Amino acid sequence: MTTVAAYAAPSAKAPLERTTIERRPVREFDVLIDIEFAGICHSDIHQAREGWGEAIFPMVPGHEIAGVVSEVGPGVTRFAVGDRVGVGCLVDSCRECDNCKAGLEQYCTGGSVGTYNAVGKDGEPTYGGYAQKIVVDENYVVGIPDGLALDVAAPLLCAGITTYSPLKHWNAGPGKKVAILGMGGLGHMGVKIAHALGAEVTVLSQSLRKKDDGLKLGADHYYATSDEATFKELAGTFDLILSTVSAPLNLDAYLALLKTDGAFVNVGAPEEPVALNLFSVIGGRKTLAGSGIGGIQETQEMLDFCAEHGFGAEIELISADQINEAYERVLASDVRYRFVIDTSTI
Amino acid sequence: MTTVAAYAAPSAKAPLERTTIERRPVREFDVLIDIEFAGICHSDIHQAREGWGEAIFPMVPGHEIAGVVSEVGPGVTRFAVGDRVGVGCLVDSCRECDNCKAGLEQYCTGGSVGTYNAVGKDGEPTYGGYAQKIVVDENYVVGIPDGLALDVAAPLLCAGITTYSPLKHWNAGPGKKVAILGMGGLGHMGVKIAHALGAEVTVLSQSLRKKDDGLKLGADHYYATSDEATFKELAGTFDLILSTVSAPLNLDAYLALLKTDGAFVNVGAPEEPVALNLFSVIGGRKTLAGSGIGGIQETQEMLDFCAEHGFGAEIELISADQINEAYERVLASDVRYRFVIDTSTI
Repeated sequence: MTTVAAYAAPSAKAPLERTTIERRPVREFDVLIDIEFAGICHSDIHQAREGWGEAIFPMVPGHEIAGVVSEVGPGVTRFAVGDRVGVGCLVDSCRECDNCKAGLEQYCTGGSVGTYNAVGKDGEPTYGGYAQKIVVDENYVVGIPDGLALDVAAPLLCAGITTYSPLKHWNAGPGKKVAILGMGGLGHMGVKIAHALGAEVTVLSQSLRKKDDGLKLGADHYYATSDEATFKELAGTFDLILSTVSAPLNLDAYLALLKTDGAFVNVGAPEEPVALNLFSVIGGRKTLAGSGIGGIQETQEMLDFCAEHGFGAEIELISADQINEAYERVLASDVRYRFVIDTSTI
Repeated sequence: MTTVAAYAAPSAKAPLERTTIERRPVREFDVLIDIEFAGICHSDIHQAREGWGEAIFPMVPGHEIAGVVSEVGPGVTRFAVGDRVGVGCLVDSCRECDNCKAGLEQYCTGGSVGTYNAVGKDGEPTYGGYAQKIVVDENYVVGIPDGLALDVAAPLLCAGITTYSPLKHWNAGPGKKVAILGMGGLGHMGVKIAHALGAEVTVLSQSLRKKDDGLKLGADHYYATSDEATFKELAGTFDLILSTVSAPLNLDAYLALLKTDGAFVNVGAPEEPVALNLFSVIGGRKTLAGSGIGGIQETQEMLDFCAEHGFGAEIELISADQINEAYERVLASDVRYRFVIDTSTI
């Protein structure tokens, strides 16, 4: 066991604070990673405050992890000491169900293990990336290509793959009109990736406050959803709308922006149920769908894609003692576009 | 103009009664059809009672029309006097939008014209199939193959195509597990068609009351949705669920019955919005979609498919003076499985 400095939420009602946790000894197929950077995902806050249901405390959040391998188990073949690597939302899965076999570990039906707020196969709670080290089975570790700096790579492990996977699955690319709903941590990655895939990209954001950024990151158009004229002008426009927002939406209004056979895909998730008029999908054979992160192989593919196109996330680097303040700023949509913790400050 | 006997609803609050209507003269591309049979669709009731919003009165419902051509305009090339033909939910569309050009007239964005409760391009209200004759542009008429009796063919024009189109679109076929939700007019056609397409078919019905019928029509399995055990046993089972019910549903419970990448497709539509937890589609990358009737070419394909497989709808033939009683029985789910009006009794 290794004692490691970390930032943890002691309970759903308390701020995060510095503490220490134990990491398991490096097993046969394990990789010990010296974490350098950890992104702050909106879902860290949902979970640390039990917005998505009962959680495990103390909680060390963080599933956007970038670091360097400092030790490997004797059975490890995919990584060596010194490799630049990342860990995303999963640190294990059943490895036997159809989804695991198909590289869709994120939809594992046999029981996947979250990077934090979960219980591993050994019965021990998992702790995430707001820490100086982590031990992970090599099959749930991905390599970070040389062209990508570790700080801007960290958010790709959740925000990147969460947008890349559905954009690929629903065929964003040349000739397709794609809207990215929400211009936050996920949304700004959606813009970059959809643009790099060759789609015509429109940002739908509450206001035009971040318009300049959106156009700079690759959007072709930028509309405010607070303006009712947007919904008239864009009726029947999009092949795909990727919704990254976790506030409740008027789904019927957004479904009306799709072409026939278009898809509205949710990667953000409100804590409360939403209302839907089923005529909104019947007219035009439309799809309301969802997508959760991505598989391990696809995460590697996404990192390679980002490196090839020369981009990571847009980040604000913070020290560990700014985490609680950062949480408030995330909730106020006051971040451009991802907070990343320099874990050397923990 | 031709004066024609018909059954009409004088207002949303009044029962249907015998009346006469005027049919337009046969124009260059028109076909005059002597209607022999007209099916009663649940949506006739929704519309005649303004459940789907403001309607046009007097209303002659009926978009499941089977009859024989008795006159053709000089430009007609597709039909001749004596041909057995059908008319479904549409009697015109813009013919110029991408959807019309793709044979998806049901999703016409330039303005399609419903068979009744609509206004034609000539500015006149349209009247449906509860009548002795109808005049329709040949491009919105389909041929009824010899093997199909007109009475059992009539319901195919809506109930048949409404289930055939999504079953084909979402690839119901060999190796696929398909559930048909609801065992009424649409549902019983869904069972027959999904079975004929080669899928493994499960009926999900409120009770087991119609189980024998379901199995006879081609279902492999039959479950009651009033039994909570059904939802446990069938979790993660289906590639496709086709929902034919127009009562509000617990969508989250049904989405849990889908496999990863499965689709829940609505062809029935509750009058009120439904609630949905978006996590139900995010976990397993699931699709909630809708589908409305089908295009003209696809309707012909469906009729040919049914004739080839030797089936029409299961019907209860009624006389016109039983229409109001039949409406009450449809609302009480007391019909096996489609009322068809013998229009010679009008």
